[in-house]
Amino acid sequence: MSDKRIVVALDAMGGDNAPGEIVLGALDGLKRSDSLCVKLVGDPAAIAPFLEGQEYDHDRLEIVPASEVIEMSEPPVAAIRHKKDSSIVVGMNLVKNGGADGFVSAGSTGAVLVGGQLVVGRVRGVDRTPIGVVFPTAKGLALLIDSGANMDARPGNLRQFAVMGSLYMENILGVKSPRVGLVNVGVEEEKGNALVKETYELLKETEGINFIGNIEARSIPYGEADVIVCDAFVGNVILKLYEGTGGALIGMIKEALYSSLRSKIGGALIKPALKGTLKKLDASEYGGAPLLGLKGLVVKAHGNSTRKQIANTLMQTVTFVEKDIVNKVAGALGASSESKED
Amino acid sequence: MSDKRIVVALDAMGGDNAPGEIVLGALDGLKRSDSLCVKLVGDPAAIAPFLEGQEYDHDRLEIVPASEVIEMSEPPVAAIRHKKDSSIVVGMNLVKNGGADGFVSAGSTGAVLVGGQLVVGRVRGVDRTPIGVVFPTAKGLALLIDSGANMDARPGNLRQFAVMGSLYMENILGVKSPRVGLVNVGVEEEKGNALVKETYELLKETEGINFIGNIEARSIPYGEADVIVCDAFVGNVILKLYEGTGGALIGMIKEALYSSLRSKIGGALIKPALKGTLKKLDASEYGGAPLLGLKGLVVKAHGNSTRKQIANTLMQTVTFVEKDIVNKVAGALGASSESKED
Repeated sequence: MSDKRIVVALDAMGGDNAPGEIVLGALDGLKRSDSLCVKLVGDPAAIAPFLEGQEYDHDRLEIVPASEVIEMSEPPVAAIRHKKDSSIVVGMNLVKNGGADGFVSAGSTGAVLVGGQLVVGRVRGVDRTPIGVVFPTAKGLALLIDSGANMDARPGNLRQFAVMGSLYMENILGVKSPRVGLVNVGVEEEKGNALVKETYELLKETEGINFIGNIEARSIPYGEADVIVCDAFVGNVILKLYEGTGGALIGMIKEALYSSLRSKIGGALIKPALKGTLKKLDASEYGGAPLLGLKGLVVKAHGNSTRKQIANTLMQTVTFVEKDIVNKVAGALGASSESKED
Repeated sequence: MSDKRIVVALDAMGGDNAPGEIVLGALDGLKRSDSLCVKLVGDPAAIAPFLEGQEYDHDRLEIVPASEVIEMSEPPVAAIRHKKDSSIVVGMNLVKNGGADGFVSAGSTGAVLVGGQLVVGRVRGVDRTPIGVVFPTAKGLALLIDSGANMDARPGNLRQFAVMGSLYMENILGVKSPRVGLVNVGVEEEKGNALVKETYELLKETEGINFIGNIEARSIPYGEADVIVCDAFVGNVILKLYEGTGGALIGMIKEALYSSLRSKIGGALIKPALKGTLKKLDASEYGGAPLLGLKGLVVKAHGNSTRKQIANTLMQTVTFVEKDIVNKVAGALGASSESKED
C-alpha cells in the first residue's frame, strides 16, 4: 500500500444490519476520506448486491471472501477457534499479517474480544485489553474504560486502563493532561470495595497520568473527568444506564409536551433548540470503540450500527492509524507491538 | 404509649441542615399525622430555638438529650463505640429498648449502618443489612437494594436482599408479586462476573420471590423490575448516575431553551407540563430508606434533607411501623426480631 493509504478491513457480516448498512457505510466512508481503502470481509454473494449500481473508487474497495459468520449467540472462544474462515477471524488475520491497518466489526462483542486476544494478540506487558467508549458529557467528551471487556478485573488491570485511556484522550481527542478519575462510592480515599481501594493506591503512584482521585457516578455526566476508570461490570452499568436514563427522561418529557394544547405549541417552538442538544447526547455520533492493548488495531462498532455509524467508525479508525495509537499504548506499557510474544 | 401512637426517634443533630430543618420537619410531620409522636434526640440548647414560638401538640413532641454528635467524616465503628451519648447511639438505644418504634437520621450513613448493626442488632439469619432506596421510573416506583451498605457482598447476601426487597415492595408499596431483577451486563443467564453468576443460580431456586432474571442497566429507568438487586458498589453507581444524568440533561435542556427568543417562548409554554414530570422524577419526594434486616426500625434520610424531606421520611416511617416491615423481614428470613442473639 502507498504511504498515505490507510487500509481498513471491515466485517461485512457482523451486526444487526449486515451486510446492507455495513456496505453502504463503507461507500460513505470512501467518499469522506481519500486516504481510506476498505477491504469488505464476508460472503461476496451477500455483499455484491449492495455495491451494484453504486459509484465508488474501485481501487479503494476490495471484497475479501470469508465463508463463515459468527453469530451473536455463539460462545466466543469456540467460535473463534473453529470458524477459521469467519469474517471476524479472516479480518483479524489481515491485521496480524499486515494486509490491513485496522479491523472494524459490528458483530458479537465477545467474539471480537476473544479474536483480538487469540488472533491479533496482546501487547507484551498488557494483561487485559479493555474497551474504551467515548461518550458525551455536559462539558464535552469523556472516555469510559473498561466499558465491557473484563469482568472481575484486578487493580493492576485498572492501572493499565488508566494509562491507555490517558494516551487515547491525549492522542486521539487532543485533551492535554486528561483528568483520570476512579469510579467510587465517594470521593474520599478510604471509600469503596477492595478492588477500588487497591487501585487507588496504584493510581496515586502511577507516573505520567493526571489522577484526580475518586469520582462519584453523579459527577460523570457533568464532565468532571476525561478518563473514567472502572471494571467492565461497572462500566457496562454506567454506559447502559446513561443511555437508558436519557431515553426514558426524553420519553417522559415528550409525553408531557403532548398533554395539552399549550404544551404542544411550546413543544413545536422548542424543537429546533432541543434537536442540537439531543444530537450532542447521541452516542452514535461518536463511532466505535477501540480495543486497547492489542498488537494491532481492532475497533468494535455498536451492534445496531447503521451506515452513518459505520462511516463514522471508519473515519475514527483512520484517525487511530494516523495517530499510531497501537504503538503508543505498547510503548507506554513497556513493550513493542512488534513483539510476537505474549 | 397508647395503641395508635407511633413513636419515632429523630436525630436532630444529623445531616447538612441540622438542627433547624430537622426540627421544622418534625413539626410538619406532627401536623400531617395524628398518630405520630416524635422524640427529638440531640442538644436541647440547639433544638429549643427552633421550637420557640411554634404551635404544636406538646404531648407528641419530646426532646431526648444527647450531648455528642457524630460527624460525617468520623470513622463509623470508632464513633459508634466511643460516642455513647451521641444522638445516633441514644436514638438507636430508644429503638432497642422499646422507647421508640423507629429511628430516623440524616446523619453519617456509615455511622447509621454500623450503629444499626452494633446497637439495634441484626435479625438472626441475616448476614448483611442492606439499604433499600425507592426511586422513580417511567412506570412507577422501584426499589434498589443494596444501594449503599455492603461493599464486596457475596451471592448469599444478594439472595437475602431479593427476599427483603420483595417484602418491602409488597407490604409497603402494595406491589403484588413484585418482579425481581438482577443487575447484569446482559440478560442471558451465563453473563456477568462471578458474583452475579452465582447469585443468578441462587435466585432461580429461591421460593416466594418473582425472579424475572437478569436486567440490563438501560432498562431500569423504564421500570422493567420492581426490585432491583445488586451489590452496594453497583447500587451506589446506579443511584448517583441516575441523579446525575437527570440533572445534567435537564440543565442542558434548560440551556437550549434559553438559546433563542422562539425557544424561550416555547419554554414558558411547556413549563406547567414539565413541572409535573420533573416532580415525578424528584427522588426527594420519596423520603428515606430503611435498613432492612435489623431487629428494629432504622431509616436513613438523605444527608441534605430539608424540612419537607424529613416530614416525608417521618410519614414513611409511620407506614413502616403500621405495616410491621421489621417482623415481616425477620419472619421471612427464618428468625424473630425478638431474638436477642445474632
